[in-house]
Amino acid sequence: MIVRPRPGALQLFFILRGSILPKIAAKILFISLLACVTVWFYEHGDLESLRSLSAPAFSLLGVALSVFLGFRNSTCYDRWWEARKLWGELVIQSRGLARDTQALLGDEAHAALRERTLRRCIAFAHALAASLRGQDPLTPIRHWIDPREAELLKAHHQIPDALLNRIADDLADCLRRGVLSDVLYQTLARRLDGMSSAQASCERIKSTPTPFAYSLLLHRTAWLFCLLLPFGLVSSLELMTPLVVAIIAYTFFGLDALGDELEDPFGFADNDLPLDALVRVIERDVLDVLGEPVPEALQPKGYVLN
Amino acid sequence: MIVRPRPGALQLFFILRGSILPKIAAKILFISLLACVTVWFYEHGDLESLRSLSAPAFSLLGVALSVFLGFRNSTCYDRWWEARKLWGELVIQSRGLARDTQALLGDEAHAALRERTLRRCIAFAHALAASLRGQDPLTPIRHWIDPREAELLKAHHQIPDALLNRIADDLADCLRRGVLSDVLYQTLARRLDGMSSAQASCERIKSTPTPFAYSLLLHRTAWLFCLLLPFGLVSSLELMTPLVVAIIAYTFFGLDALGDELEDPFGFADNDLPLDALVRVIERDVLDVLGEPVPEALQPKGYVLN
Amino acid sequence: MIVRPRPGALQLFFILRGSILPKIAAKILFISLLACVTVWFYEHGDLESLRSLSAPAFSLLGVALSVFLGFRNSTCYDRWWEARKLWGELVIQSRGLARDTQALLGDEAHAALRERTLRRCIAFAHALAASLRGQDPLTPIRHWIDPREAELLKAHHQIPDALLNRIADDLADCLRRGVLSDVLYQTLARRLDGMSSAQASCERIKSTPTPFAYSLLLHRTAWLFCLLLPFGLVSSLELMTPLVVAIIAYTFFGLDALGDELEDPFGFADNDLPLDALVRVIERDVLDVLGEPVPEALQPKGYVLN
Amino acid sequence: MIVRPRPGALQLFFILRGSILPKIAAKILFISLLACVTVWFYEHGDLESLRSLSAPAFSLLGVALSVFLGFRNSTCYDRWWEARKLWGELVIQSRGLARDTQALLGDEAHAALRERTLRRCIAFAHALAASLRGQDPLTPIRHWIDPREAELLKAHHQIPDALLNRIADDLADCLRRGVLSDVLYQTLARRLDGMSSAQASCERIKSTPTPFAYSLLLHRTAWLFCLLLPFGLVSSLELMTPLVVAIIAYTFFGLDALGDELEDPFGFADNDLPLDALVRVIERDVLDVLGEPVPEALQPKGYVLN
Amino acid sequence: MIVRPRPGALQLFFILRGSILPKIAAKILFISLLACVTVWFYEHGDLESLRSLSAPAFSLLGVALSVFLGFRNSTCYDRWWEARKLWGELVIQSRGLARDTQALLGDEAHAALRERTLRRCIAFAHALAASLRGQDPLTPIRHWIDPREAELLKAHHQIPDALLNRIADDLADCLRRGVLSDVLYQTLARRLDGMSSAQASCERIKSTPTPFAYSLLLHRTAWLFCLLLPFGLVSSLELMTPLVVAIIAYTFFGLDALGDELEDPFGFADNDLPLDALVRVIERDVLDVLGEPVPEALQPKGYVLN
Repeated sequence: MIVRPRPGALQLFFILRGSILPKIAAKILFISLLACVTVWFYEHGDLESLRSLSAPAFSLLGVALSVFLGFRNSTCYDRWWEARKLWGELVIQSRGLARDTQALLGDEAHAALRERTLRRCIAFAHALAASLRGQDPLTPIRHWIDPREAELLKAHHQIPDALLNRIADDLADCLRRGVLSDVLYQTLARRLDGMSSAQASCERIKSTPTPFAYSLLLHRTAWLFCLLLPFGLVSSLELMTPLVVAIIAYTFFGLDALGDELEDPFGFADNDLPLDALVRVIERDVLDVLGEPVPEALQPKGYVLN
Repeated sequence: MIVRPRPGALQLFFILRGSILPKIAAKILFISLLACVTVWFYEHGDLESLRSLSAPAFSLLGVALSVFLGFRNSTCYDRWWEARKLWGELVIQSRGLARDTQALLGDEAHAALRERTLRRCIAFAHALAASLRGQDPLTPIRHWIDPREAELLKAHHQIPDALLNRIADDLADCLRRGVLSDVLYQTLARRLDGMSSAQASCERIKSTPTPFAYSLLLHRTAWLFCLLLPFGLVSSLELMTPLVVAIIAYTFFGLDALGDELEDPFGFADNDLPLDALVRVIERDVLDVLGEPVPEALQPKGYVLN
Repeated sequence: MIVRPRPGALQLFFILRGSILPKIAAKILFISLLACVTVWFYEHGDLESLRSLSAPAFSLLGVALSVFLGFRNSTCYDRWWEARKLWGELVIQSRGLARDTQALLGDEAHAALRERTLRRCIAFAHALAASLRGQDPLTPIRHWIDPREAELLKAHHQIPDALLNRIADDLADCLRRGVLSDVLYQTLARRLDGMSSAQASCERIKSTPTPFAYSLLLHRTAWLFCLLLPFGLVSSLELMTPLVVAIIAYTFFGLDALGDELEDPFGFADNDLPLDALVRVIERDVLDVLGEPVPEALQPKGYVLN
Repeated sequence: MIVRPRPGALQLFFILRGSILPKIAAKILFISLLACVTVWFYEHGDLESLRSLSAPAFSLLGVALSVFLGFRNSTCYDRWWEARKLWGELVIQSRGLARDTQALLGDEAHAALRERTLRRCIAFAHALAASLRGQDPLTPIRHWIDPREAELLKAHHQIPDALLNRIADDLADCLRRGVLSDVLYQTLARRLDGMSSAQASCERIKSTPTPFAYSLLLHRTAWLFCLLLPFGLVSSLELMTPLVVAIIAYTFFGLDALGDELEDPFGFADNDLPLDALVRVIERDVLDVLGEPVPEALQPKGYVLN
Repeated sequence: MIVRPRPGALQLFFILRGSILPKIAAKILFISLLACVTVWFYEHGDLESLRSLSAPAFSLLGVALSVFLGFRNSTCYDRWWEARKLWGELVIQSRGLARDTQALLGDEAHAALRERTLRRCIAFAHALAASLRGQDPLTPIRHWIDPREAELLKAHHQIPDALLNRIADDLADCLRRGVLSDVLYQTLARRLDGMSSAQASCERIKSTPTPFAYSLLLHRTAWLFCLLLPFGLVSSLELMTPLVVAIIAYTFFGLDALGDELEDPFGFADNDLPLDALVRVIERDVLDVLGEPVPEALQPKGYVLN
């Protein structure tokens, strides 16, 4: 995620970090060159017929493309924002689990259980972040759980879920030993439900892109539209054609590419969610309740927060 | 569902798998031929009056059509995405049921009950997927439940609901025998509510298409608009008319057809939801908790995941 | 509700059942005749000034009208879909009540109570459907409840709510007699809350149309726009004016009328919700749990499901 | 709220009740007069330059204004509909409180408590409606509560919340005396939470208009757009300018004014919510459970329901 | 937040307080000057080629920009409104905590606990408002909590969460001493969950702006569009170019800047949420239940409520 103050008017055009421009520069260049060639032919050649490809057809396609790109962007943004909400939910449940265990299992006798539970909760966040980013979820959690437990987790194909199951086993043990009443067990178990629900919803966003036919239709239409642009505008814009074509191509290709970037919000791209920073928030708040030293909050590097 | 990386600019135009193009190719061809005929008459014939069918009327109809197609697509996508969320809910409840039964009924004495319950949970997912796809729900669940139970289920017109009722009976038996307190029974019964709710909501999407009058109005307007296109554009585009008409028809017919495809997300079309893969996710996570061997996750075949 | 496969391209234009066309045919005809008169005057008369009423003003009004019609349609569709969701909720709660009573009150001693409760649940669906459609809610429920109870219900102005109250009284009696613990009573009472909530929400949709000023503004603007259309298009379209005007009027009047039809989804119009079929779903699922013979699911007649 | 059947095509233009027209008539007249003056100068004067202010600039501003007005209307309508939903929630909770108290406190011994609670519930609806409409909330509730209690309530700045607190005190007393178990107390207390939540949400809508800068930007743009309209259209529309300008001004000013009216849905304007009728619904349903005579439902007067 | 009646038509153009105009005046002036220069060159110079940069290209870019600005505004408004809802949730939970503690811990023996809990609840609102506004959260809460507790809180990096943990500890103590049953403890603990959830959601809005690439793309496109405007309109508008350009620039820059302002709703800008007034609402309602003197509600100063 890019974290920076709003740039000034001049500064605006020189920002590359976080901009979608580098990704579409080649396309814009190609369309602009095509426009230059078109202008040359129009001025020197015998392209009278180009005069014809004018406003009406373009308005039609341009308005339709705007409406559909607008829809796709809104959809992709909703996915990105839902993913952020789900991680907010993880923060809420982690703080709640910390508060509940401190209140309900806060005595000396359950200190080990409490610490184990809360460290597993931190490990859950690490494991989820890693598996959403396609990394090995076992690596980041070794610091937080018992080495033997880490060994046991290897047998499971799904580390975050296995961690929740182990927390639940501990809580059920408290229930059996009468340390927790069934109502209080239920209270704590709901925290796990909340975390499991956030996990499955993140996996849903990760594993289900917007329908391929939709993206394909939009990519194709955007390309066709931009390819026709020089022919459509040359008769009225003449020498200014390449400039205007480049601006329009920038807007349409940019929105198209931005949709692609927001669609999967869990990667390492500039505009993806700062999972590391969110995991750190959970670490900090849970460790604070455990009375352990709290690490620093992650800061953006060169305006980028991962 | 199509699972594939974003195609490059050239590749983009040669993809058929997952594209909506094959479905609407005939229509586009027809409109393009009509455009060719129109051009011929315009060039050689005496169609002065065609000159008149120009921009204003088309802008009007085109903008209106864009707005309404945009609305319908957003509606159909919402149905598709809601269906995906409901199956995500099934994943959440299945994992939760596995976690809860392991924690609350995890002792030796209830091993049989636990296994029966979780296998019925897997059977529920299979039965729901089959009935949503118009297949016999009994076939895929035979592997997961007792043959006598399968026999008994035949008497019911609604297999998924009957499976939930049988799980509930087992749980109520635990409640009567004092194995579960009423609060814990409630906790487990809510899992069944979640699954039942997801089932009924999938049935709602399956059985209630968007209002027919709406689709009809849009199909008709899209056809009328595309039929008039050649007459409207020939005076300004001349020889390029068929090309531009084909592109515009592709966009409008494509979005119209895509809406139809997303409207019922439970079929076997390329862009439908991968129910088999989702059922397999449930299988894997539940079997893992049962300690049984876990099958492989389903992989896309030729980019298609069913 | 219309249930039919997507019509072919030719078939598309001959469908009347479910189409909005019959309702707006008079208006379209009127506008088309007006267009014919305008063309006649334009060709033969001295209507030079008509030449002026051209594109700019129409684009403005047409785009604005599209955006606002789009908003109203989306609003009315949301009401229709919310109503469908509420009836889905009724299905969920009815199945849940059947499952819960079978599990918790499934013994011989409570067979009468259980049957009475579930038959009242079916009666509730019938009564709600009837009262939403402005019919006498007592008629359809006589089959499902005790004649003396039907007599008593006459004293109440609100049959569905009175039925829920009677179910609640029975459940509270079980609570007092110790048959149900307070937690289990709460579980069952929440079913009634869900049904009551769906009822009140359906009543909200029924009793609160979209703001009248909004519909009025749209109806008026649609009329004014269509009335001006012939004058605006005649100078450029000439003899084709009536055809194009009819198509545009069809689109705009059609969407306007469709909004009206979807706004109140509980009637007997072609595009209204199939309440009878939904009540039958509840009947079938509840009777199945009671072990009574299950009636057939309702089938569409001439593509229409009521 | 206006409750009336859809008007016929002719009737449509003579409706004033519920129309936004009277509120914006002065503005439309002013713009039309401006158009007349413009036409006069254009025909007789030396306003060649007016010819220039033509289509492109207007399309731009008109489309933008449509999109933004569309957004504001959708926002204001959402507020209006949310407010209606909140009152629906009050209906649900009132019916639920009536059902619960009848079931759980329905014996003779608690008849007084039950009546007091339900009459306070009715008083709550009256007090909330009055305070949302800026009236004294004590006046309408005197009929429903004990005079001494009314005296005590004067000490509180917030009558609805104070009523809920008094109901809660009574329920807590039942809890202390063992009449209600903690679970049943919780069930009843959640009713109060639902009512409190609806109250606070209504207050949110009442106290927080849409951002002023937004409304201001739209009002200004709408004015500027309409002021420029005559100059922009006179060269193409000539004598018909005032008519077309009036229609366009009606649409844009109308939507702008309608947004203002829907923004605060709790007043006495024609399109505001019928709070009196909704309070009466609550009265009727609660009194029915109490076995007291039920007043008539409120009917619209001259199509207006308050 | 600006709280003022709708201004009259004339007044409308002289309002600065709450308007977005001052923030974008420099940009509009710059674009208008550019337009003046363009006009001068066009009239006196040799800029025949400018004639070409006309309608089609502008319509395209303008429509696209409108759709995308509309999307961004709707997104930013949703954040602003969600933030307002979250503070409404805080009001609900505070009132609920006050009602619950009065009902369940209302006896003399727990007066100190009750007061301590409710004053911490007020302190929570103060601390959250301060930390969302980037101020020291300890300063405003000293008035509400014990000096020693304030000292202890310094050790925590997150004051609001620490306050909730302390309330939870007190409640858990009541649970251990048998003053509260587990069900009633759960009821009260859920209030804390609600407050914690609102806190984390506010932090989410505060810490996660809309994707930077999106804002950047829009800012750039808005600038490019407005920079090209004078060249595009000069040939048709001539001397009126600067006026029309200024109006269009006002609309587009204004909406762009307004999105920025609403994006972070927790500052001190005119259109930000009135956190101080909302904290005061919580103070008033909680103190009223405690029977302490209630401060005045905050009033807007010069139409601005902070």
